[in-house]
Amino acid sequence: MIKIALDALGGDNSPLVNIEGAVNAINEIKDLELLVFGDEKVINEILANYSYDKTRLNIVHAPEEITCNDKPTDAIRLKKESSLVKAIDAMKQDEQIGALVSIGSTGAVLSGAVLKLGRISGVKRPALCPILPTLNGKLVAICDSGANAECDEEQLVQFAIMSNLYMKKAYGIENPKIALLNIGTEEEKGDELRKNVYKLLKERTDINFIGNMEARELLTGVADVVVCDGFSGNILLKSTEGACLELLGLVKKAFYKNTKTKIGALLVKKEVKGIKNLMDYNNYGGAVLLGCKKTVVKGHGNSKAKAIYNCIKQAYDMEKNNLRSSILEAFNQSLQNS
Amino acid sequence: MIKIALDALGGDNSPLVNIEGAVNAINEIKDLELLVFGDEKVINEILANYSYDKTRLNIVHAPEEITCNDKPTDAIRLKKESSLVKAIDAMKQDEQIGALVSIGSTGAVLSGAVLKLGRISGVKRPALCPILPTLNGKLVAICDSGANAECDEEQLVQFAIMSNLYMKKAYGIENPKIALLNIGTEEEKGDELRKNVYKLLKERTDINFIGNMEARELLTGVADVVVCDGFSGNILLKSTEGACLELLGLVKKAFYKNTKTKIGALLVKKEVKGIKNLMDYNNYGGAVLLGCKKTVVKGHGNSKAKAIYNCIKQAYDMEKNNLRSSILEAFNQSLQNS
Repeated sequence: MIKIALDALGGDNSPLVNIEGAVNAINEIKDLELLVFGDEKVINEILANYSYDKTRLNIVHAPEEITCNDKPTDAIRLKKESSLVKAIDAMKQDEQIGALVSIGSTGAVLSGAVLKLGRISGVKRPALCPILPTLNGKLVAICDSGANAECDEEQLVQFAIMSNLYMKKAYGIENPKIALLNIGTEEEKGDELRKNVYKLLKERTDINFIGNMEARELLTGVADVVVCDGFSGNILLKSTEGACLELLGLVKKAFYKNTKTKIGALLVKKEVKGIKNLMDYNNYGGAVLLGCKKTVVKGHGNSKAKAIYNCIKQAYDMEKNNLRSSILEAFNQSLQNS
Repeated sequence: MIKIALDALGGDNSPLVNIEGAVNAINEIKDLELLVFGDEKVINEILANYSYDKTRLNIVHAPEEITCNDKPTDAIRLKKESSLVKAIDAMKQDEQIGALVSIGSTGAVLSGAVLKLGRISGVKRPALCPILPTLNGKLVAICDSGANAECDEEQLVQFAIMSNLYMKKAYGIENPKIALLNIGTEEEKGDELRKNVYKLLKERTDINFIGNMEARELLTGVADVVVCDGFSGNILLKSTEGACLELLGLVKKAFYKNTKTKIGALLVKKEVKGIKNLMDYNNYGGAVLLGCKKTVVKGHGNSKAKAIYNCIKQAYDMEKNNLRSSILEAFNQSLQNS
């Protein structure tokens, strides 16, 4: 049985979508047990509409909500009755709970996980690793995407090692192609950090390093993982998401311009919807915090039930395939070799 | 008379597009004089097809071409007969030549300008500042976009000062909104560099600092200038360009899927073309290198004649409105105040 804690609060449409996603996951995955943290009464009211295996979905009452307006470290320290803090505390007490899924405040999830769950031995700093769909139907992970605004060489190499294992364990990619985000493709490009990390990654035999990648290549699917510091990774992720969103908005506006365009839009509707679906994060899991003692998945704040289901499935796959122990092993190996 | 040097080589479609753009500029702008550097015989053959004021377009024979395969600093030192080196040498000798337009190797243009033309007194490092169209029909400048992979506080403040004057002088924006690229909007977000620069920009009375901006806002037009180090600026620019290009490619593919979609595409063709035009850099000028003793415009390598014309017009506007002397004055003021 895989046991996962689900934070039912903190999202734009919580707890409704969280509960719907939870029920779907319970019904789909037979060896999954969920502990759902939130207001018991509200959750029970929602659950009354569904049929599911009640032995595998348990509620822990936690009426308080951490919002994006709370200062993350303060919230983790002070909001003891919040769904997030209670979930993390339960994970510390119960060894069987291997993973946390939350769509609440990113800062609070990161703070709670790093401060309370702790790091895997040898990991300098955990990294936040979201995935994006590429236009050739694959996925690309960005590691780190904002947990560490400033990074050194060792951290970037660790991000490469962890995200390599992540793509193997969560998505079954055999030999993930690892690229270093840089402002040119040649080995000597970029700042001192990039030049040094390039050399370190090139030397490693445990990862398939394909060299530097420019930001414009992200969606082409040339790499399975892009390694970067959290500052530039955040720029990469958000400018890509922003551009896609704005451009699709323009296309939609063009379609609604007049009667002629509306008829035209009807004829291409299915195909354009396909593009929107391809770019819709609800169809994929959330961002994973790599390097903590337990698995942590942080979904988008405005996730729908489908996204919650995918986040739970993602956490389940990582647990099932022992991602955490693989990372632990890789870092033990590194420590012994150094 | 505004005198501008045009490098006729180095682009994907050079020298044909360069010459066509030059002729259009000469015909449109009556107080413009162009010195065109390239193979005299080839240029004359192209020019034979056009009518224009021959007294204002002069050719300087420079048969050698610097390509993207050349190492920039070596090329500037060794390719003495190249169009770029001869243009820069002429600018050094002739005080009247105020600006350079080139669509050749970015590295070579930067090296040549910084090493040979030199910096404006007080400017620590020149910055490469491209412009992108925003979806509300305005423009946004990214400063720096890659000339300086590593930056300190002083440089970022200088980028803000220079790009503020640039948006005023080249585009007539009265009080440009200057934003700092960061991974969150609150003052305390980001790394030490960003936190310190935020404080410094907030204190200045000569610029309209609107605070931090996240990468996802770039195309919304919320800012006229985004200030950033060259590494993250390059990521911002290229991921935005990449995402737009890839997404428009997907839309095009969807339109060609079957007979039904092809008919639909015909009905929305004009509007979708409008979006493509909006995003087409040929309709705007090139990237400007701010902080050199002479004005430098670097256009896209695969510019069309229209882009060349726009680059020349951009250089002309900056010269006409005395951008260089405004920057000089601003930095003299700073030096006196410090």
